[in-house]
Amino acid sequence: MSDMPTRNLQMLTLVKPDGHLELSLAEVPVQAPREDQVLVKVLAAPINPSDLGLLVGASDMTSAKATIINGHPGVVAEVSPIGMRAMAGRVGEAMPIGNEASGVVIATGSSPEAKALMGKTVAMLGGAMYAEYRTLPVQMVMPLPDGTSPRDGASCFVNPLTALGFVETVKMEGHKGIVHTAAASNLGQMLNRICIADDMPLINVVRNAAHVELLKGQGAKYVLDSTSETFMDDLTEMLVETGITCAFDAIGGGKLGSQIMTCMEAAAVKRMTEYSRYGSDTFKQLYVYGALDVSPTVLTRSFGFQWSVSGWLLTPFMAKAGPEVVGRMRARVVAELTTTFASHYSHEISLDEALNLDTLHAYNAKRTGEKYLILPHKGK
Amino acid sequence: MSDMPTRNLQMLTLVKPDGHLELSLAEVPVQAPREDQVLVKVLAAPINPSDLGLLVGASDMTSAKATIINGHPGVVAEVSPIGMRAMAGRVGEAMPIGNEASGVVIATGSSPEAKALMGKTVAMLGGAMYAEYRTLPVQMVMPLPDGTSPRDGASCFVNPLTALGFVETVKMEGHKGIVHTAAASNLGQMLNRICIADDMPLINVVRNAAHVELLKGQGAKYVLDSTSETFMDDLTEMLVETGITCAFDAIGGGKLGSQIMTCMEAAAVKRMTEYSRYGSDTFKQLYVYGALDVSPTVLTRSFGFQWSVSGWLLTPFMAKAGPEVVGRMRARVVAELTTTFASHYSHEISLDEALNLDTLHAYNAKRTGEKYLILPHKGK
Repeated sequence: MSDMPTRNLQMLTLVKPDGHLELSLAEVPVQAPREDQVLVKVLAAPINPSDLGLLVGASDMTSAKATIINGHPGVVAEVSPIGMRAMAGRVGEAMPIGNEASGVVIATGSSPEAKALMGKTVAMLGGAMYAEYRTLPVQMVMPLPDGTSPRDGASCFVNPLTALGFVETVKMEGHKGIVHTAAASNLGQMLNRICIADDMPLINVVRNAAHVELLKGQGAKYVLDSTSETFMDDLTEMLVETGITCAFDAIGGGKLGSQIMTCMEAAAVKRMTEYSRYGSDTFKQLYVYGALDVSPTVLTRSFGFQWSVSGWLLTPFMAKAGPEVVGRMRARVVAELTTTFASHYSHEISLDEALNLDTLHAYNAKRTGEKYLILPHKGK
Repeated sequence: MSDMPTRNLQMLTLVKPDGHLELSLAEVPVQAPREDQVLVKVLAAPINPSDLGLLVGASDMTSAKATIINGHPGVVAEVSPIGMRAMAGRVGEAMPIGNEASGVVIATGSSPEAKALMGKTVAMLGGAMYAEYRTLPVQMVMPLPDGTSPRDGASCFVNPLTALGFVETVKMEGHKGIVHTAAASNLGQMLNRICIADDMPLINVVRNAAHVELLKGQGAKYVLDSTSETFMDDLTEMLVETGITCAFDAIGGGKLGSQIMTCMEAAAVKRMTEYSRYGSDTFKQLYVYGALDVSPTVLTRSFGFQWSVSGWLLTPFMAKAGPEVVGRMRARVVAELTTTFASHYSHEISLDEALNLDTLHAYNAKRTGEKYLILPHKGK
């Protein structure tokens, strides 16, 4: 324990009672690992949309201003009264942030399970990962095969388990495949590789021609540009061909989800022999798992009465699926970490750089093809 | 079989390929009952919103014109191209109409089951009820206790089974009670009586002060006017008190459903001890079973990720619930026909009067408190 660090730099997000959001880096003590814990030097942590939900939350980022806090870059932004109400539960509490990361175990507690991890490269899930060091129970780390680079191990949980969770959900509920929106994302590319490997029909919906080419170049059979004039006709045709009745939507706002359900119903009606004013008897499911567009979801209900639109979130899904299914999903992620579950990062930044205002605006735009990786020890 | 009628006057709704809807009365032959069938003289048939979905469908009723067809009043209305697409499956087919009715069995087939129904007052479900006579299998009629008036037996199925279906759904899915919109309707009043009898919490949401008084006068504990300024605060308070997490919405369009879910989430958050950016872990369900407002459903998604908005329809519910549950529901309807399941009609009209243009506009407005009953032999 002689090389135990004493200082830990940690990112914090704080909503103040006066209606401001403050993002900062704070020096906090390193927690020594207890019996069943390990201390991990954090080497790489991705910025996922789910992290931004906590980092900037419901604040008004157009009002954001750069500042210096604790001798490090900081950001202050205004929060509207509506935003304050949405975040009422966190006012006054400086919250650490970062869902997942990879790193190396540099100290352990006394338990055999903890000691066995000494020196190992591990993947971690559990919050507070945008920091130089993280102390956590052995159950919350997953050892990676020797030689795995921290970059490859940084995104072992959120995107891979979400993509696998979609496939498991579809199987559990008896659907035949998936319509996926924002399909050119890291998550979308993973899902495409999973569906090709598992022979599950997947219709990828993207928002421009370049992304159509990107996914086709990765072997996707069905790719549609939602801005195309023939989008709904083309989608209906693919739905007739595949029989898909389940969609996962990362966008949330606007009419796209409703359009997909309308096309599913049109495909189902083509298979009907008798008219019903209630529409088809084919059950159609739309899962909303993201909010790239935070405006309201608009449902025209032009798809009969056999439908459901639901929120989808990884944690409750895993609780529902049970430990056996989740264990199988995790084992697959480790086995296929650099193939099926490979992530690509367009930018690698330090903790200080992560709170540079221009950089923050850039990753908060959540542009497909731009993915940021925080290296807390970059340049050190 | 000597008094067997030969002429049957039947209402028909036809979408013509040239973009017009035509409503008419046609003289059709009376079908003699086969072995397991009965011939019923139809005495009373309600006009439910679900009937109007077939009768006027997606036509433009502001363009409706009165005419004479087959020597009876008829109506012709225009259908927009969008309406034609929505009704593509029924173009060119003159469809009989009327989901349910009551009447007296005046002839039967040779089977013992059929013969046993001779002279009985029965309730019927199965379409084509806006007619003087209806021939149908014994399985589709339900004998009513001796002395039941046809008026009391006219609405044995659609509203009673729907209201009971809500209660069964809530029990099956582990919710604690119901939020109901358009709660002053005949269906809503029934649901109120059922929930009082079964001790199930019910929050009635109505659209004006008179309806608040109406339901309070019928013993409702929770009644809210959605046009009140304190609606959302009041609803949240009632949801905290009752723990209700399921709503049935007859309106469909607009923001009311989303507001109810937002209040359910606010009530759930009040019970939480720790902040989560994903919202509460309380699952919230909104069932859309009607379309009093045909505009799009607008969901703000300000209610976390643990939610579902789904279509609800009686027939698939009954298929899911199974014959035992449905049998129990039917038996209760018969036993409590003039109490719990009593319907009130503001207007009694003949078949000819049902196709009078002013009358059609009046019942098509689906105003709460106005309910039309067709008496096919009125004045004869």
